[in-house]
Amino acid sequence: MESYDILIVGGGAAGLTAAIYTCRKKLRTGVISMDIGGQTNLTNHIENYPGVDPMPGPQLMKKFEENAKSFGAEIIFGKVIKVDKLENNHFVITLANEEVYECKALILAYGKVPKSLGIPGEEKFFGRGVSTCATCDAPLYKNKIAAVIGGGNSALEAVEELARIAKKVYLIHRRDAFRADEVTVEKVKKMQNVEFVLNSVSKEIKGEKFVKSIIVENLLNKELKEFEVNGVFTEIGYVVDTEMVKHLVKRNEKNEIITDERTNTSCNGLFACGDITQVAYKQTVISAGEGAKAGLESYRYLTGGKGVLIDWTH
Amino acid sequence: MESYDILIVGGGAAGLTAAIYTCRKKLRTGVISMDIGGQTNLTNHIENYPGVDPMPGPQLMKKFEENAKSFGAEIIFGKVIKVDKLENNHFVITLANEEVYECKALILAYGKVPKSLGIPGEEKFFGRGVSTCATCDAPLYKNKIAAVIGGGNSALEAVEELARIAKKVYLIHRRDAFRADEVTVEKVKKMQNVEFVLNSVSKEIKGEKFVKSIIVENLLNKELKEFEVNGVFTEIGYVVDTEMVKHLVKRNEKNEIITDERTNTSCNGLFACGDITQVAYKQTVISAGEGAKAGLESYRYLTGGKGVLIDWTH
Repeated sequence: MESYDILIVGGGAAGLTAAIYTCRKKLRTGVISMDIGGQTNLTNHIENYPGVDPMPGPQLMKKFEENAKSFGAEIIFGKVIKVDKLENNHFVITLANEEVYECKALILAYGKVPKSLGIPGEEKFFGRGVSTCATCDAPLYKNKIAAVIGGGNSALEAVEELARIAKKVYLIHRRDAFRADEVTVEKVKKMQNVEFVLNSVSKEIKGEKFVKSIIVENLLNKELKEFEVNGVFTEIGYVVDTEMVKHLVKRNEKNEIITDERTNTSCNGLFACGDITQVAYKQTVISAGEGAKAGLESYRYLTGGKGVLIDWTH
Repeated sequence: MESYDILIVGGGAAGLTAAIYTCRKKLRTGVISMDIGGQTNLTNHIENYPGVDPMPGPQLMKKFEENAKSFGAEIIFGKVIKVDKLENNHFVITLANEEVYECKALILAYGKVPKSLGIPGEEKFFGRGVSTCATCDAPLYKNKIAAVIGGGNSALEAVEELARIAKKVYLIHRRDAFRADEVTVEKVKKMQNVEFVLNSVSKEIKGEKFVKSIIVENLLNKELKEFEVNGVFTEIGYVVDTEMVKHLVKRNEKNEIITDERTNTSCNGLFACGDITQVAYKQTVISAGEGAKAGLESYRYLTGGKGVLIDWTH
């Protein structure tokens, strides 16, 4: 059984930043993840990560990966299905491919997964018109019609991206105000081929082999309306899947792992950072900051308090 | 009196990131600072800020500034000497040059200042051999002898930088273990012209026009020893100066401003982020993450709850 000082589950902004910090402390560090980049990968154009020019999310995350590897982080591709704590306080991690790893401290940083609408047709047409990733699938909509569901930055950015390619884009949102940044909302409002369908919720996605239409209910007058669309992009947020560690850590009502302000969980030696926790405002730079805290705090744990409580140094 | 939606005091990683976020929300934002870059500027080679290649601290901070300005942040150079809250909940900020500004929400992000040794000669020779900035002053020590005092990353980095230029560098540290990253400690240990003076504290800095020597006490045997040096670099940490807002916010025993995990202080409409707060582990990426939280939280405050509590979107 391969053994590490630190294992980090998740290869997004939080996990890779944690790895930079633990590797710089000369701790053998493995990053177990199904992908590199996490949610930042779904952003086609990240403008609000400070210190860099605006660029595609995957490009920024590639650099995070390079940084972590440059200090010795080992990337292990796989899906974690089981986490156990041994009597010696080490952790044992089992992957779906039956590989097993051991570590002295564990950092959970695997973020969140897109929330589903839960309406008829959504599952049936997933990958055949229904998508959770505009960055991935927008290029397929040249001269076609798409609907985006949601009102946050992800939704508005998806609309913007699609409207540059598609013939027409509907933005379906349950309220008449947006959570998205106003600069983004303004940009989208100026696009000629975008139609706002507000105070409205989607009820059903219809089609044959592929999506052909979406049925939408207006919440004010309860009227149903069918829009012809070739694609439906759901951008309504995310859920956290923390079932596999519920025997180890306290979680809140959203199933997010509860941490203190240093990323400690209720389980000694187990740390959590980024979108998998209760931290407010899910942003790449915030996840990176929380990852740095987890890296430094796990080092402090492993060095039995010989590490620092407050590190005044840069 | 010039009026802003948001004023941010401090132009380091926390303040500039906060500005990126408030500007993207279309809030008129002013950043009041004595400099651009804050403590990150004192790092000659920042390797642990994720998403970029290693580079000098000031270069990274220049990019932060560009990012903030690109969204409309206005930089106001000056020293804040007074902060008041009006009955309408606006804040009034007075600068040393007697300029006065008003804002609806205030973010304090002005970090910390280097701690002094408090020994004879330190003040007298400041700028004449005594320095708190190796990055600034190391080039003056070609073929000379320098002492660095401290044991954290800043101290070890200062030694590394000086040893590349100076004839000899003493590292004077009160313990025999270091708080600095092990990679940095190892690098410095390999340098031929560095001598470690451990379990030792400095007692006096002597000289005529310029520094000529430093007197050091060995804590184990209480012996005093005089080292001939041309310069003394103090790298023993920082103190926070929050006197001017003590009538507004709760502080801890280190005079750091106490915030909740969303950067709210005990004063409604006043937010704090980065090294000026109790946040653990003072790092550029952590300050940037906290700055993003402050930017988004102040927006939520100004929009009277129409903003989001948890922003699931990127």
